[in-house]
Amino acid sequence: MQRIALDAMGGDGAPRVIIEGALSAVREWPDRFVVSLVGIPDEIREVLPREVPDSIQIVPAAEVVEGHESPVRAIRRKPDSSIVVGLGLLGAGEVDAFISAGSTGAVMAASRLLLGMLPGVERPTIGTMFPTTGSPVLVVDSGANIDARPSQLLQFARLGSVYMRDLLGLESPRIGLLNVGEESSKGGALAVATHKLLQDDEDLNFVGNIEGHEIVEGACDVLVCDGFVGNVLLKFYESVAGFIAGVLKAQLDPEVHGEGFKEVYRTIDYAERGGAPLLGVNGVSIICHGGSSARAIKNAIRVAVACLESNMVEDMASEFGLPTRRARVWRRIRRR
Amino acid sequence: MQRIALDAMGGDGAPRVIIEGALSAVREWPDRFVVSLVGIPDEIREVLPREVPDSIQIVPAAEVVEGHESPVRAIRRKPDSSIVVGLGLLGAGEVDAFISAGSTGAVMAASRLLLGMLPGVERPTIGTMFPTTGSPVLVVDSGANIDARPSQLLQFARLGSVYMRDLLGLESPRIGLLNVGEESSKGGALAVATHKLLQDDEDLNFVGNIEGHEIVEGACDVLVCDGFVGNVLLKFYESVAGFIAGVLKAQLDPEVHGEGFKEVYRTIDYAERGGAPLLGVNGVSIICHGGSSARAIKNAIRVAVACLESNMVEDMASEFGLPTRRARVWRRIRRR
Repeated sequence: MQRIALDAMGGDGAPRVIIEGALSAVREWPDRFVVSLVGIPDEIREVLPREVPDSIQIVPAAEVVEGHESPVRAIRRKPDSSIVVGLGLLGAGEVDAFISAGSTGAVMAASRLLLGMLPGVERPTIGTMFPTTGSPVLVVDSGANIDARPSQLLQFARLGSVYMRDLLGLESPRIGLLNVGEESSKGGALAVATHKLLQDDEDLNFVGNIEGHEIVEGACDVLVCDGFVGNVLLKFYESVAGFIAGVLKAQLDPEVHGEGFKEVYRTIDYAERGGAPLLGVNGVSIICHGGSSARAIKNAIRVAVACLESNMVEDMASEFGLPTRRARVWRRIRRR
Repeated sequence: MQRIALDAMGGDGAPRVIIEGALSAVREWPDRFVVSLVGIPDEIREVLPREVPDSIQIVPAAEVVEGHESPVRAIRRKPDSSIVVGLGLLGAGEVDAFISAGSTGAVMAASRLLLGMLPGVERPTIGTMFPTTGSPVLVVDSGANIDARPSQLLQFARLGSVYMRDLLGLESPRIGLLNVGEESSKGGALAVATHKLLQDDEDLNFVGNIEGHEIVEGACDVLVCDGFVGNVLLKFYESVAGFIAGVLKAQLDPEVHGEGFKEVYRTIDYAERGGAPLLGVNGVSIICHGGSSARAIKNAIRVAVACLESNMVEDMASEFGLPTRRARVWRRIRRR
């Protein structure tokens, strides 16, 4: 049984939406995990139904980190916050994964502090799934690192590759570098240097530069970019569906086509697809959109369980802990 | 009568599509301009109908710059190319504007060389109109400057402001800085330094940072970003409409809703909205998408004429040629 710590206090709809998500997860997948709701017990109990499954527990945490607080200061000043308590449990091995729709910055900072980085990884990265015409593409980094070095982007590529192999079962995920043209000389200093590092890494299936219009074409499985561009793209993508649906609604009869629009929103809305993993830390830490629905929380729990069942963190550790070539051979042997 | 030089050889559909665009422009707006088709006369004549309006002329140019050529080398080695000949005519004052759907890099390099920069402007920028739920937003830079300095981004903002005032008649265009959060401290070194410069410029109506999801909300009239992010966003935006329409088509009956989809494509497809002005050079130089349709070329001619009729280049020169405060007063007096 996997043990999931869920921040009951984080997100716009907390604690109600978070708890609804947890309840629907344990109903849909019974006997696979227990969920510890971390937060203010009175507030949690107010929302919980009278009859609660055994697989739902409450872990008290008296404080809440607010979105406007400076992340590093907040986790220092609020040691009894749901984020610090939940990640503390994970760091101590008392739970197996942590999920929060609270302050992204605070979850990142506390994950780094309480879980530690995998050896050989300099910084954590947020990987977000973008829907495409084919299978989804994992965009690393989606906002954790505004200024990233080429060596760090290479690390993000390797982390993303393991993630897509473990979670989507891809043999050899195609790695693309977001850029403004095909040629290796395109882009600024960061892109040119990163291109070379990706090209030289024999263990990566690097397919070259990916231009803006190729993203939704599913031209790669892992798209590498710095967190500035990744964050802008992510937010832009989320908003565009609503805009385009609006243009269409002005043309079409909305009564008739409600389902079509819902499907569009569902396809594009990344909140609906569950959380984004924080990759590179020594543990499964999932970050959800502040506006997550109960369905998104349920899906984030599914993602956390999939990370655990695929041994994602161990695979990432071996990706970095051994010389890459040996790690690859080792992985192949182990998988037989 | 405005005199427009049109590169007949540039773009995927050249010369046919380009010439069709020119013909439809002179038919739709007769007696307002003459169009000089610059290119290989035989190839142009093959497409031209027998009866050609007087307002269509041919200017011979024996060479064509290809898309794969290095822009600077190409314009040096092909002095008789349609791009160099057309911009040479503009630089010599023999025509009033130049339009090309050929190599963007070559048009930029030749514009810089043959027209020169406006005094006080370091680099040209490409401004592209993005559709939003409100009026369109001009994104500067859309790909001309991969590495830009804060002082250059400030110049792009000022150029964009004049453009939106002159062409869209906005009193005081709202300038936004593309960033990953609201606060002035957000973003990397480039964003933080540019924020300060924009904030300190009393003549700009700076509305602060704009996040990815705010772009389609029409949160500003001019969106400032470096050419890397601008280019990625532009190409991404162009491709997303097709993707989302595809999701909808799978849900809806396409027979019934053809018009709705066409409207979506029309709204999003920036090629349909004509060319993007190259701002900061001393002349009206319009860059069109390589895949421009005849309609896009027609619209680019309309944009060029609007630039000329609004005295855009003169207004930009006075924006930079006089101390900003004086220029503003001067503009106000002149407009009375």
